[in-house]
Amino acid sequence: MYPDPKTVTRVTTIGAGPIGGGWAAHFLARGYDVTAYIHSEAETAALMSVINTGWISLQSLGLAPGASRDRLRITTDLAEAVAEAQFIQESAPERLDIKQALYAKLGTLAPRGCVIASSTSGLMMTQIQADCPSPERTVIGHPFNPPYLLALVEVVGGKATEPAAVAWAVEFYQIAGKAPLAMKKEIPGFVATRLQEALWREALHMVANGEATPADIDNALMNGPAPRMAVQGQCMAFHVACGEGGMATNLDQFGPALKWPWTRLEAPELTQELRDRMVDGCNEIAGDKHFEEMAATRDREIVAVLNAIRDARSG
Amino acid sequence: MYPDPKTVTRVTTIGAGPIGGGWAAHFLARGYDVTAYIHSEAETAALMSVINTGWISLQSLGLAPGASRDRLRITTDLAEAVAEAQFIQESAPERLDIKQALYAKLGTLAPRGCVIASSTSGLMMTQIQADCPSPERTVIGHPFNPPYLLALVEVVGGKATEPAAVAWAVEFYQIAGKAPLAMKKEIPGFVATRLQEALWREALHMVANGEATPADIDNALMNGPAPRMAVQGQCMAFHVACGEGGMATNLDQFGPALKWPWTRLEAPELTQELRDRMVDGCNEIAGDKHFEEMAATRDREIVAVLNAIRDARSG
Repeated sequence: MYPDPKTVTRVTTIGAGPIGGGWAAHFLARGYDVTAYIHSEAETAALMSVINTGWISLQSLGLAPGASRDRLRITTDLAEAVAEAQFIQESAPERLDIKQALYAKLGTLAPRGCVIASSTSGLMMTQIQADCPSPERTVIGHPFNPPYLLALVEVVGGKATEPAAVAWAVEFYQIAGKAPLAMKKEIPGFVATRLQEALWREALHMVANGEATPADIDNALMNGPAPRMAVQGQCMAFHVACGEGGMATNLDQFGPALKWPWTRLEAPELTQELRDRMVDGCNEIAGDKHFEEMAATRDREIVAVLNAIRDARSG
Repeated sequence: MYPDPKTVTRVTTIGAGPIGGGWAAHFLARGYDVTAYIHSEAETAALMSVINTGWISLQSLGLAPGASRDRLRITTDLAEAVAEAQFIQESAPERLDIKQALYAKLGTLAPRGCVIASSTSGLMMTQIQADCPSPERTVIGHPFNPPYLLALVEVVGGKATEPAAVAWAVEFYQIAGKAPLAMKKEIPGFVATRLQEALWREALHMVANGEATPADIDNALMNGPAPRMAVQGQCMAFHVACGEGGMATNLDQFGPALKWPWTRLEAPELTQELRDRMVDGCNEIAGDKHFEEMAATRDREIVAVLNAIRDARSG
């Protein structure tokens, strides 16, 4: 029922804001024909501003063969915008009533077999698809801001979504140059925003208590965990830092620290099951790589990041 | 009483582990004479392994004029190690009894006016300095791992520390190529580890609930917030993303989201005072820069980071 994701050449984006425009810029840069639906012609300038801003970065990252802003078509006619779409990325305003009404129309207007993905960061697909006559092909495809630069897309379906549509979206995003994360369950905030929000709440606590200023928070992140986290996630950071013992050593040795008041935020119980999931997961990522090899790779990549930031700042 | 930090040429490091060795490598790369105290000669190989590993990265980042591993002296004699020190970076094992006994000795052995900084990540200086006969010059100088790569050093004194010693350490670290963060209060976990720990606990919750795997967590971080956070902390990320309105818009608009279950972790009350601190702090960092200029800088630097990571991986 769904076409081979490799054969997709035409994408429709919906929305003229930083997310909708950012998606349009991304797909253009990857060499797709893009039809951008906007609510009214008055939004054209805003859309083009986002696309042109994004284009500067996308050119520096390297465009796909044949990629061009000339392959963008803008329309205020929804039916026309989606009539021949092979994939739809919806970034309408974050209001449930607006999205539900939109999906009620899209469900009929968009060709069968065309997956419709929502950029929503705060709504659930089960809610959004409630009035959609063909909800089986509707998924969340949540990007990270700015969407033309950060590769993450969190993908999850609603109750009425077919697993095949989720699988298709994951494969398509991969082909389209993104880093999809297929979520196991619909949870508010998805994965990345939950992590960021936990960090953010602790930051607010510290500022509220006079323990740190916003400048301290940003200094701590930029010169502390962030350059490392850009090349190695927190799980593998601990796994590799603990040498031969890896994540098992980390949890067995520092597990009790979960009870320490190192944040105002409560920790989960470190059950045997949780321990095993963490350890097995890290071993799976590591494959047959030795920790010394992974540490050397981490260092080489952090050096590259630090030199790149320094050069960008002095250049 | 304290010498001009710019005149420091001799640093003593204590400890042969990844932190102690990492500090020795850092100071050597910045052109200092380094005396490394180790507990026994059997630790020489471990120390040199850390230094030689770090050196590969430090060379790529660029050494200071005259920097050389030949300027390292290793000794197992504590009195000799610190007799002529102008600054001491202590990275002994993380046990309070060991540190207290060490500071009891250092307080007499180290010259007056020589600041002693502890790399501890989990102890308070008020505890560590309890038996030290000259506690006024003892501070925390907590690095981030790996210390030869990440610039952050969190600096805070204990109850018996002179403010002048904290100020001296901040100035010295800055001169020595680090990014010091002068903390307002002694709090467990300092600033960066508290932020990282909040994120980590939410990650464990998600894995415990079967909502994400360690690979999902790491994918979310590396392809989501981390590349941005390496060039722009979370406060300025929100400030700049909200355009003209900046942090004020962010808090006024998304403040209610603090009540949403986007993490398992409780949020602070968003009082007027907290709001103002956040807004004022961001405006201070921004200075007279317009948000569009800051967004363009952010994008240019993220592009540099992404290209650097890609080149490092393909190279």
